[in-house]
Amino acid sequence: MNFRVVLNVLGALLIFEALSFILPLSFSLYYRDGDTLSIVYTQIICLVTGTFVFFLTRSHAELRIREGFAIVGLGWTTLAAFGAIPFVLHGSIPLYTDAFFETMSGFTTTGASILTDIESLPHGLLFWRSLTHWLGGMGIIVLSLAILPILGVGGMQLFKAEVPGPSPDKLSPRIKETAKILWVVYLLLSVIETILLMFGGMSLFDALCHTFGTMATGGFSTKNGSIGHFNSLYIEIVIIVFMVIAGTNFSLHYSMLRGNLKSYWKDREFLFYFKFLLIMIVAVTGMLHLSHFLELGKSLRHAAFQVVSITTTTGYCTADFENWTNGGQLIMLLLMFVGGCAGSTGGSIKIIRIMIVLKQGVNEIRKLLHPNAYIPIRLGGRVIHPDTVTNVLGFFLIYMLIFAAGTVCMALFGLDLISAGASVAATLGNIGPGLGQVGPTDNYSAIAHGGKWLLSFFMLLGRLELYTILILFIPEFWKK
Amino acid sequence: MNFRVVLNVLGALLIFEALSFILPLSFSLYYRDGDTLSIVYTQIICLVTGTFVFFLTRSHAELRIREGFAIVGLGWTTLAAFGAIPFVLHGSIPLYTDAFFETMSGFTTTGASILTDIESLPHGLLFWRSLTHWLGGMGIIVLSLAILPILGVGGMQLFKAEVPGPSPDKLSPRIKETAKILWVVYLLLSVIETILLMFGGMSLFDALCHTFGTMATGGFSTKNGSIGHFNSLYIEIVIIVFMVIAGTNFSLHYSMLRGNLKSYWKDREFLFYFKFLLIMIVAVTGMLHLSHFLELGKSLRHAAFQVVSITTTTGYCTADFENWTNGGQLIMLLLMFVGGCAGSTGGSIKIIRIMIVLKQGVNEIRKLLHPNAYIPIRLGGRVIHPDTVTNVLGFFLIYMLIFAAGTVCMALFGLDLISAGASVAATLGNIGPGLGQVGPTDNYSAIAHGGKWLLSFFMLLGRLELYTILILFIPEFWKK
Repeated sequence: MNFRVVLNVLGALLIFEALSFILPLSFSLYYRDGDTLSIVYTQIICLVTGTFVFFLTRSHAELRIREGFAIVGLGWTTLAAFGAIPFVLHGSIPLYTDAFFETMSGFTTTGASILTDIESLPHGLLFWRSLTHWLGGMGIIVLSLAILPILGVGGMQLFKAEVPGPSPDKLSPRIKETAKILWVVYLLLSVIETILLMFGGMSLFDALCHTFGTMATGGFSTKNGSIGHFNSLYIEIVIIVFMVIAGTNFSLHYSMLRGNLKSYWKDREFLFYFKFLLIMIVAVTGMLHLSHFLELGKSLRHAAFQVVSITTTTGYCTADFENWTNGGQLIMLLLMFVGGCAGSTGGSIKIIRIMIVLKQGVNEIRKLLHPNAYIPIRLGGRVIHPDTVTNVLGFFLIYMLIFAAGTVCMALFGLDLISAGASVAATLGNIGPGLGQVGPTDNYSAIAHGGKWLLSFFMLLGRLELYTILILFIPEFWKK
Repeated sequence: MNFRVVLNVLGALLIFEALSFILPLSFSLYYRDGDTLSIVYTQIICLVTGTFVFFLTRSHAELRIREGFAIVGLGWTTLAAFGAIPFVLHGSIPLYTDAFFETMSGFTTTGASILTDIESLPHGLLFWRSLTHWLGGMGIIVLSLAILPILGVGGMQLFKAEVPGPSPDKLSPRIKETAKILWVVYLLLSVIETILLMFGGMSLFDALCHTFGTMATGGFSTKNGSIGHFNSLYIEIVIIVFMVIAGTNFSLHYSMLRGNLKSYWKDREFLFYFKFLLIMIVAVTGMLHLSHFLELGKSLRHAAFQVVSITTTTGYCTADFENWTNGGQLIMLLLMFVGGCAGSTGGSIKIIRIMIVLKQGVNEIRKLLHPNAYIPIRLGGRVIHPDTVTNVLGFFLIYMLIFAAGTVCMALFGLDLISAGASVAATLGNIGPGLGQVGPTDNYSAIAHGGKWLLSFFMLLGRLELYTILILFIPEFWKK
């Protein structure tokens, strides 16, 4: 492990974080509601620390895979650790544990909050809170399309060939090129959503913040009532559409922008994702209409928003699904284990893995009939390598084991069984709202300190596809 | 599919069932509490139907793998369907749905009951209820050690080589030979336990019934208070020891009886099983002592019984773990997904699969460090074939998918989330008592009819290692 190289990149990240504070600073100066100094101080802390570390560790060593893993895990943690500072300095989130939870929730695009009164926060800090989503989302797209396929994490190598950019050789140039392309796509889509939201009557501030929350499948709102606050069908439709977009593989958007409009309907994962969303919306609409006697239009509106929001792991809400029937609540809980497409900003297990897991299930049963035949798993005519299948199954089972162990831990922190399970599902899957104590209208403030740190860890673990973090716990990893 | 052969075996099974009614009939005649006629009538129904089907379908066709699958699935169902009759005839369980649930629960060694007052049942029927456990347990040992390894179900082929009996060639002679050997072991252990329980003050009747419940890891008791009724440390210790024995691979007991005393400590699965039980007992003892301020001895007594009972999937109770802390309850819920060793009467996922799943998890992370290396999974020096690993992972994921889908269904039947999840975990894993509405001191009587049929199906599904039943739903299976 070349710690110099790792620290060097972390230093660069801190300088980048310092620069990104310029945006919330502008809003703070415009609205003048008392958070300017806390932002400026944090900016200085980041800039000084970053510059110091960066120049102290300059080296010409090449990035290797091991350093890549260390940078990803430590990078996200560093950004969250420093990003939490302004909340504490300003006093709107007095405890560092809470501030770290909130910022980690932002950078991991989770959207779980410890705030009881979001609207009491000054504009600059609210903007920073939402911006962490957007930055995190950007990071995730690059990570999942450019870095993880090379690192061979959890079946993501499936996408190795499909990624735009130069052929893989050394890590850095390839990553930079891909990042640039995806950055443009991400920025373009964000600009479009912001304009559309402003058409719906949102201020530039609210439109930007909610665009950040949508495009990153994050879920932080500037309002206590989340999207329900606006009570506008138009805004809900715009956000539903952009949540679906954010949950789609960004290399498809890239193809689309290059004129290949058909790329969506040729992509098996996207088709599954789209059909799955439709089926779930119909099912939940039916449930709301039949069990809650809600009129059909309203049922569809509520169902579409909540299903898309939870499946894409965004976490915006327009209805409190905790008041739904047991069956409805459970469907929402299970949707937390689905997630968006690979290469999207969505978290959780992800569509492609769900597809492979289901195909493998059917395959195993078929094999009993033909014990000596090799039945490969196909995805759109392409045969998936058995190693990749094992990889995906491995990811699925580790995800389940962490979910189970995490739920026990949260129960030991005193949460009831539903809240314990939902809090882990909602953080590990980067969704945000869960059920019970941490439901859509509640928040994470009442959880014990230890529990908050653990859940912050789960956000990171889920966001970075488990392996990227778990590998750091193998002693072998740190050996020369 | 040769339906003739299948029906022929089912006919034979019915004749066997008719004969096995002789035992409860004897107790009925001895105690004379009004169930004699209902037993005799059922015996006649089974005998007539069985003989009729058997002689009508006589053939010399050889059993093939497909027929094997059909016989296993349909055999268990037939036994339960006819075994339910005396309860309805007698009127102690007036509804056939309930009687079928109870009998399926018996034959699948689940131990889930719809009875609110067990002690009100006449002795003959109570004995039959417990006997279904014992017969089912015997069936499972033969199935898992002689039949499933040949059929290649869910990694059970691991045990192909270890099974006593002649080399595999055609199905029937091998199965018969193995069955005979295991029958002797099972009978011998049952005799020993019965004698030991009688030493503890139980009547022959109670001793036999509780032996059946223990050896089959079933859990039906003759008392409303389960084992807690006897309030005897001696009886609890005997039952704990025999639950552990029943959860052990019976080929190890066979080796032991042949003088190979060390076979237990050479078996990796048994070692893991034993250590796992000890660790869990210590953890739960600590929890009871520290959180519930129970004295250490009592904590240990409660912890040991409940942990062993749930892990081995027996389901006898001496304490209501629903009153434990959230963490304690959750540990019990998770133990429902462990199960005994393969080749035992225990149900659920089973130790060997848990071991392979855990090893595979660590392996996947290690692979990231050595992307091009082939790292095999070893179990006691033996390399597990990658196909077997995929098989086991497939089993694990299908188990989880059925658990999730089943929980949704039960929630749609109106159960709250905890009860819904626990009812599926407790039936799919053949445990019996769950949590919430179906906790240790409750029963399954209040569940809707449809829910009872579904749970009965889950008992069968779990008991027959999923695949054996799922294969029946593939259209290809039924083609010539």
